Amino acid sequence: MPSERAVLDAHYMARALELARKGQYTTHPNPRVGCVIVRDGQIVGEGWHVRAGEPHAEVHALRQAGELARGACAYVTLEPCSHHGRTPPCAEALVNAGVARVVAAMQDPNPQVAGQGLARLAGVGIEVASGVLEAEARALNPGFLKRMEHGLPYVRVKLAMSLDGRTAMASGESQWITGPAARSAVQRLRARSSVVLTSAESVLADNARMTVRAEELGLDAETTALAMTRQPLRVLIDGRLRLPLDAPFFKAGPALVVTTAAIDASYAQAGHEVLSLPGSDGRVDLLALINELARRGTNEILVEAGPGLSGAFAQQGLVDEYQLFIAGKFLGSSARPLLDWPLARMSEAQALKITEMRAVGDDWRVTAIPLPAASV
Amino acid sequence: MPSERAVLDAHYMARALELARKGQYTTHPNPRVGCVIVRDGQIVGEGWHVRAGEPHAEVHALRQAGELARGACAYVTLEPCSHHGRTPPCAEALVNAGVARVVAAMQDPNPQVAGQGLARLAGVGIEVASGVLEAEARALNPGFLKRMEHGLPYVRVKLAMSLDGRTAMASGESQWITGPAARSAVQRLRARSSVVLTSAESVLADNARMTVRAEELGLDAETTALAMTRQPLRVLIDGRLRLPLDAPFFKAGPALVVTTAAIDASYAQAGHEVLSLPGSDGRVDLLALINELARRGTNEILVEAGPGLSGAFAQQGLVDEYQLFIAGKFLGSSARPLLDWPLARMSEAQALKITEMRAVGDDWRVTAIPLPAASV
Repeated sequence: MPSERAVLDAHYMARALELARKGQYTTHPNPRVGCVIVRDGQIVGEGWHVRAGEPHAEVHALRQAGELARGACAYVTLEPCSHHGRTPPCAEALVNAGVARVVAAMQDPNPQVAGQGLARLAGVGIEVASGVLEAEARALNPGFLKRMEHGLPYVRVKLAMSLDGRTAMASGESQWITGPAARSAVQRLRARSSVVLTSAESVLADNARMTVRAEELGLDAETTALAMTRQPLRVLIDGRLRLPLDAPFFKAGPALVVTTAAIDASYAQAGHEVLSLPGSDGRVDLLALINELARRGTNEILVEAGPGLSGAFAQQGLVDEYQLFIAGKFLGSSARPLLDWPLARMSEAQALKITEMRAVGDDWRVTAIPLPAASV
Repeated sequence: MPSERAVLDAHYMARALELARKGQYTTHPNPRVGCVIVRDGQIVGEGWHVRAGEPHAEVHALRQAGELARGACAYVTLEPCSHHGRTPPCAEALVNAGVARVVAAMQDPNPQVAGQGLARLAGVGIEVASGVLEAEARALNPGFLKRMEHGLPYVRVKLAMSLDGRTAMASGESQWITGPAARSAVQRLRARSSVVLTSAESVLADNARMTVRAEELGLDAETTALAMTRQPLRVLIDGRLRLPLDAPFFKAGPALVVTTAAIDASYAQAGHEVLSLPGSDGRVDLLALINELARRGTNEILVEAGPGLSGAFAQQGLVDEYQLFIAGKFLGSSARPLLDWPLARMSEAQALKITEMRAVGDDWRVTAIPLPAASV
């Protein structure tokens, strides 16, 4: 049996995680972090990080606790920072407030600074602990952690398919495969992402804008207002610069266009950026692109494209997670595949761990994580 | 709020349904039926129908109750029969035992006799009721009900597929798409069926026997022993009589072979029956086949075949239920489709109601019911 202290630590950390989740749509490029200050069995301060440049979770919670922070215990979903960034280090703030104990769900994911914040606290006699509800804390920030630990963003590929694994008729006809609840879930996936990445082909087919729309989020008013304070960066893969600048996609706001062609100055004049990243196969170099996006602070990328671009990410092993929205329909054997990814032998099949299947309106949502080849 | 009597009626009927389910693997061609006799708030008799030719559920329950049946209430999952079949009518037995009240979950599904059993009871002053947990009672016997109500068996199509809707590589390579728990679930689907229907192509590809195997059922010893007292009839669609008589399929026991070719006497000599049912398209007439199987008392058919035969059932609108076993794998865009069923337009898509998705070992099992075309 866990000790009473372990039970209480998990209890307060669960609350800190709940607070951290409030930052789901706004903290980019920072991580989602929550903090709870507890004194004599009472929560005396709560805080969560809202957006970059604004105070960290610990600062909000300490402000609320005021003098009650002295001798209290602080629960933080991420190790308090020990470096001066846009705000002063939180470890310093906790020391100054006189807390007696600090419990972190996880250490700083940057291997070069992991543990330094807690060490700083321990060094002045504060009791420290780490690893409480660590898995839940990691799940809050898949993109931030992947970027800190591997220098790459977390790539989530969303596809809408029929139960027989098809994304459109052979003719391209594809609108409304899934229903409004699934589309709303996709809007929330967009809103939490740093980048929404698509292809000229997809945008041309649907006249898509790929924006987050308040009325489709399906969130309460407060969370909707928060989510609408930022739009994810829209990245368009357009090898031959086919999408005209008067397309609704470009009219909806500034975008980053990635091409293999020469850079055309008219895009910049219209407020868009163009990157030319030709790969050795004549197509856009996707690995170079996501490296560049990571360098710019991209945590989570949502790929919303057809079987071509999604298949290219899959074949290059760049996918961290599939979000498959499955409609109760058969589109038949001549319809388009889920991914353009021809494989000859069963031993080449991509193994996946299906981590969740749940009903979303009349459709079903499947979360699947690619596994290493040896797992097939 | 339901009355106390309604609450108690549902409570005892739930027990009768539980008893009926014990006959899941054995009652063919009869329905699964359970019965509970209650007197003064105590269950004094329980029974379920085991197999054709043996006593009906009511008789077992009345025997157990003995003299205590006088003045008691009998709960039956199906209206007691009023006709002389292989056993005397149960309505008579209930009258003779002196029960005061009979509650049925549903009326006899044969429209020409529905209500006659209850009317017979009411005629001698027994209080009768019907419709308690009717949906659950109907779900027990989808095949028996379809045959009684529509003269056709209930056709369940089982397919094992990857998450991208593929059943095999283009080369035909397909073994072990799903894991042992899914295969065990398929064994139980076979065991509950009157008929397991397959194609020469599938049997040739896998050297399949299509039998029920005790060690793969994953059931307790008692239920396994019951299930093994019968094998479903194995029906092989073999238009050109390609499967040799020394194939493991034929060695495993007598089968019904359905062809478009002339009947070959060597099958009968080997203990198998051959039916020639050529359709107007030169292929086996599937509707004529399932009509003939219904005439022979077939309640549930399990179709276990590849995309060709399964696709033919689908295209002809003969499928009542899909059982899709989904493995966490992508087999890629050149792999074989779920069903050979080319469709050109979204408006032709088959709409389905996904009634269940659940984990089965490392795989997932999806139950989907085809909906009329207008529902797309």
